[in-house]
Amino acid sequence: MGADLPHPFDPLSLAEIETAIATVKKAHGDVLFNVVTVQEPRKAEMTAWLEGPETAPRPKRVADVVVIAPGGKVYDGLVDLAEPKITKWELLDGEQPIITMEELQLVEHIARKDPKVIEQCVISGIPAEDMHKVYCDPWTIGYDERFGSGVRLQQAFMYYRPDVDSCQYQYPLDFCPIYDADKQEIIAIDVPTLRRPLSKVAPADYHPAAVEARGGYRSDIKPINITQPEGVSFEIKGREIEWQNWKFHIGFSYREGIVLNNITFNDKGTVRPIFYRLSLAEMVVPYGNPERPHQRKHALDQGEYGAGYMANSLSLGCDCKGSIHYLDAHFPTRAGGLRTIKNAICIHEEDAGILFKHVDFRDDSVIVTRGRKLIVQQVFTAANYEYVVAWVFHQDGTIQPEIKLTGILNTYAMLPDEDTHGWGTQVFPGVNAHNHQHLFCLRVDANVDGPNNTVFVNDAVPSPHPVGSAENFYGNGFFSRRTKLATAGASRTDYDGATSRTWEICNPSKLNPYSRKPVSYKLVSREVPGLLPKPGSLVWKRAAFARHTVHVTPYADDQLWPAGRHVPQTSGEPSRGLPEWIGDGAASIDDTDVVLWHTFGLTHFPAPEDFPVMPAEPMTLLLRPRNFFASNPVLDVPPSYSSTPSQVAAGGKGVTDAADRMSRLAFGQANREGTARPVEGMAAGCCANGTNGVNGH
Amino acid sequence: MGADLPHPFDPLSLAEIETAIATVKKAHGDVLFNVVTVQEPRKAEMTAWLEGPETAPRPKRVADVVVIAPGGKVYDGLVDLAEPKITKWELLDGEQPIITMEELQLVEHIARKDPKVIEQCVISGIPAEDMHKVYCDPWTIGYDERFGSGVRLQQAFMYYRPDVDSCQYQYPLDFCPIYDADKQEIIAIDVPTLRRPLSKVAPADYHPAAVEARGGYRSDIKPINITQPEGVSFEIKGREIEWQNWKFHIGFSYREGIVLNNITFNDKGTVRPIFYRLSLAEMVVPYGNPERPHQRKHALDQGEYGAGYMANSLSLGCDCKGSIHYLDAHFPTRAGGLRTIKNAICIHEEDAGILFKHVDFRDDSVIVTRGRKLIVQQVFTAANYEYVVAWVFHQDGTIQPEIKLTGILNTYAMLPDEDTHGWGTQVFPGVNAHNHQHLFCLRVDANVDGPNNTVFVNDAVPSPHPVGSAENFYGNGFFSRRTKLATAGASRTDYDGATSRTWEICNPSKLNPYSRKPVSYKLVSREVPGLLPKPGSLVWKRAAFARHTVHVTPYADDQLWPAGRHVPQTSGEPSRGLPEWIGDGAASIDDTDVVLWHTFGLTHFPAPEDFPVMPAEPMTLLLRPRNFFASNPVLDVPPSYSSTPSQVAAGGKGVTDAADRMSRLAFGQANREGTARPVEGMAAGCCANGTNGVNGH
Repeated sequence: MGADLPHPFDPLSLAEIETAIATVKKAHGDVLFNVVTVQEPRKAEMTAWLEGPETAPRPKRVADVVVIAPGGKVYDGLVDLAEPKITKWELLDGEQPIITMEELQLVEHIARKDPKVIEQCVISGIPAEDMHKVYCDPWTIGYDERFGSGVRLQQAFMYYRPDVDSCQYQYPLDFCPIYDADKQEIIAIDVPTLRRPLSKVAPADYHPAAVEARGGYRSDIKPINITQPEGVSFEIKGREIEWQNWKFHIGFSYREGIVLNNITFNDKGTVRPIFYRLSLAEMVVPYGNPERPHQRKHALDQGEYGAGYMANSLSLGCDCKGSIHYLDAHFPTRAGGLRTIKNAICIHEEDAGILFKHVDFRDDSVIVTRGRKLIVQQVFTAANYEYVVAWVFHQDGTIQPEIKLTGILNTYAMLPDEDTHGWGTQVFPGVNAHNHQHLFCLRVDANVDGPNNTVFVNDAVPSPHPVGSAENFYGNGFFSRRTKLATAGASRTDYDGATSRTWEICNPSKLNPYSRKPVSYKLVSREVPGLLPKPGSLVWKRAAFARHTVHVTPYADDQLWPAGRHVPQTSGEPSRGLPEWIGDGAASIDDTDVVLWHTFGLTHFPAPEDFPVMPAEPMTLLLRPRNFFASNPVLDVPPSYSSTPSQVAAGGKGVTDAADRMSRLAFGQANREGTARPVEGMAAGCCANGTNGVNGH
Repeated sequence: MGADLPHPFDPLSLAEIETAIATVKKAHGDVLFNVVTVQEPRKAEMTAWLEGPETAPRPKRVADVVVIAPGGKVYDGLVDLAEPKITKWELLDGEQPIITMEELQLVEHIARKDPKVIEQCVISGIPAEDMHKVYCDPWTIGYDERFGSGVRLQQAFMYYRPDVDSCQYQYPLDFCPIYDADKQEIIAIDVPTLRRPLSKVAPADYHPAAVEARGGYRSDIKPINITQPEGVSFEIKGREIEWQNWKFHIGFSYREGIVLNNITFNDKGTVRPIFYRLSLAEMVVPYGNPERPHQRKHALDQGEYGAGYMANSLSLGCDCKGSIHYLDAHFPTRAGGLRTIKNAICIHEEDAGILFKHVDFRDDSVIVTRGRKLIVQQVFTAANYEYVVAWVFHQDGTIQPEIKLTGILNTYAMLPDEDTHGWGTQVFPGVNAHNHQHLFCLRVDANVDGPNNTVFVNDAVPSPHPVGSAENFYGNGFFSRRTKLATAGASRTDYDGATSRTWEICNPSKLNPYSRKPVSYKLVSREVPGLLPKPGSLVWKRAAFARHTVHVTPYADDQLWPAGRHVPQTSGEPSRGLPEWIGDGAASIDDTDVVLWHTFGLTHFPAPEDFPVMPAEPMTLLLRPRNFFASNPVLDVPPSYSSTPSQVAAGGKGVTDAADRMSRLAFGQANREGTARPVEGMAAGCCANGTNGVNGH
């Protein structure tokens, strides 16, 4: 094996992207490249290679290519990079591939020159000579039955900036041009019956000059320095990282952004697989205003624009602080050039507070151990919103995906005394921010001690027996009711807050030696609002993954994205992705290679606090080992302080004191009040407990 | 106003405790002091003084005293500390005051010498000469109908330690002595029909010698240093803290631990009250094994033992890291001495990641601002468990109570092949950890822009109109349904996961200027499992606060603790605390001074990962400003980096670059792969975004 060969899980290198593009161009001339990405290795081949890299064939490097040829013809292709040669070239019918940033950026320039758009701007109160102050956020049209899927369309949300530096979302316009990407022209404008002229209120900007003009920045924040003088605790080879018994491969795709593969945990020398692949596979942001054309506002941001394509270039000391490692991302440009997002991924450690602690109340003998976490993070900008996506690894075997929402609300114009009818909130004069949800689909390709896994639903329920009965005399009995999900059809399950429902991915063939329960990873997720658009609604049809909190499917290569491969302008008839794969629902998901799809997120009823830019709103969930380890797996993390009863009895002789020596008292002395006079029984010594600081009886 | 006078919210000083004790002893001789605490100032007097400290009388300092006189007679008393003089002295009938640490510590010594206990130990397989290896965790008995409330009792959970340094919870014994605190003797022993002899397995300890014997500590964790060379960003005068527009008073009670009073936020120069008082007011840990006598395992830890009395003495660089300020806690000893828990509270700041960010996809103009949080924290040890309680304040007006569970599971003996019947899990050979819940009651004494507040329930619901109807043609309509809680009776409400239910504490007299909705703080809490013991069960009767997620009551002085003032051995007939106060439920809670009681927590089905000591398991909730501010209140936090469109167009001239200069690349260079060759359109410059790093079309 050549050391320079890419890992089969690696994203395409710049050279590989170039090879793919050249191969396609040679065969098909000048086409527009929407996608040139790695075709992920077939799992059977990859698993064989992972298990025996010396004997099994190395999976081939294949580029998955999506192009638009002249005339708007869309092709799906595969390029075998070793040869190189095109191994698949398929013309699609009525499917629209992902919208690239370049396509999005073009619309504004065309809209500004369009006479019908100018006419609407004038009606709104913007002079024709001010068209350079008109901006648009183009979104894919979602689906509009007037146009269908055959024409590549964007809808342009229109805004005005009184000044080039002004936040545009405070001056929304009330009409919506429709843009044809093939013709590169505006083909229609949706104009509401109720007109809402341009707001005349003064801006409330957040850029430094605006803040200075309002009185300036606060000056009472002292720096917090975070340093690792001895370096970080992780190692990276290529894109494989090792940290605190974890090992995994960090990929990055145009579509999902960060992709984690082959996640294993070294359990006292045994490398145990946990997940074959983890990613955010899709998302949908449905808006709740039923008035036309707002029903088209339901971004499937990953399928329509790509969490990788929209990734921010992260910066040391801004997005990330401390000792950071970065990975870049490489993509094609549409014309067939190369594009690099520098620092698309940041990787760093953070202190995680108390990992475990126990004090014996008899003698204040104590152990206190601090935890550490590893964070693999990206940020992507979807027009107005920012999504901060972090994959947090804990020493105890927990994986915690965490998303922070920030950025700016999507806004619409409103009249000074207009009733929002509860579909939105006036967050600033003339600015209506519509109700919406952010629903994410976590794809969990499970590999809990091997590929053959089974998913159970766990519900915390009271004993069925009444108070006073022999079985439950005092009425306090409760237990965890486990329900096996045997088929893909039966796997469609929803969160139940009343039973604190969790889902357990277990390996039925491996039992914990003590609990005798199957080894498992449990999905603990409480931010699970459910899809509010109704069954049968356009969003319900297009984003079928969001109909349930959990779906489980048997593994199949290429079933990666639960709203389908090509998402823009899908009608939802039939629904793509998960419903296709589940079909009649009869497929067994019992003791086989399964993928769990989990929809979580939040419902956002905007408020003025969210404007003009939102303080980050976090949401999170846990994938926790349960009955996976034979005991707490972090007992060998060095404690900050440990004293045993015999050491306490010996006056502290032999205690372990590894307290952090860089910590300081905020004001130079322990406590101005408490130290002023002698007191009886004051506990003394580092990390001693106070509960026993009393005179004996 | 003398500068040396205590703040009326302050806990009693050592001198004040001494005065109270001396005054009581002078009048009543040698009594045992269970409680000497501040009687919190009457709210009407306190509010008048807070509003006009120069004109209104300063609230008196009064000690609230609970003593046990010879013969087990319990008295509630008040001592006016200025005189000093006893102003109330009331003999209680059949009520048991809080159990102190001193009382708990006595039981083990007596049990070890008791012949009947020795007999049971011998039956279990422990030689009589090894009684020094027998330990007990005494708990209040909860309630046992055989004994009632008149006799002061503890139940002793028995354990064996093969070695003094061994974790005791791996060798539980199967019988349970009952201890009479007045007689200081064992009065009964509960012995199960099925006997479970002492386990003979080797211990699995977590102390350093044990870890070393198993192969030692991991050596791959590099230090993370957190320093504040310019000092902290908060100021403290007495016990009042100011930080990032927040100001509040930090109290500490034997009962609730940290108590936060008079929480205000300086909103652009206007000091706006938000909460009069916040605390964890009670908790209950019901265990779910219905077999007698395990029904008695349901600790109301705060009412029965006190989160203040059980507080740990915290230590720099162990429990807390960085620049820390500590506050001590002062209590009486039972004999009338003084006891100080040094460093009972720690206060520090932490970096909080991205506070807000936005990138304009057109030109990569960007603002990224880092957040900061303030943490006021304590840890308390309730026999086996540790509770890490943090009150986290965010710059954006959010308050986030956060609890981490760690420590050790309560355990019971089991035979090698015994069936736990689903009521518990074998976490180690011979060790059965029973199912249990940790339910906490957050007491929110609301003061949202003034005392007169109203609570609404918010449910996220779809439009009532069907898909295809004129009102909801595309089916995407959804809104927030608000339901006013008008009376204390109607306030009993439960979490609804299906509607992502939240509760909103609003001031109906003050509307947000933009949204025109009442200013409010919203309770966002998702860890709300509900009480699993059934209606009518002993726990349901004793811990009535846990029957519902939320109760709201009109404010009344002294209604602080929702399971009642004296909690040990209450029968729940009638239920104390909240049900008494709510009565027939008719009291109005509309536009008046209200208190919201919120029960949250988690249900714990143990697993071997939790043993022999648990990795910390976190839970949290948010109190968020909604429609409270006219705009994002953190716009004046200095950004790490900001560039506007005009600055980008000017080649970066004038950008704000205040990136943290202490941050470093983990491996010394940005990216080994990405920098190896020139690429088109690579984004450059600090904090620039990558989305636009492409060649224009």
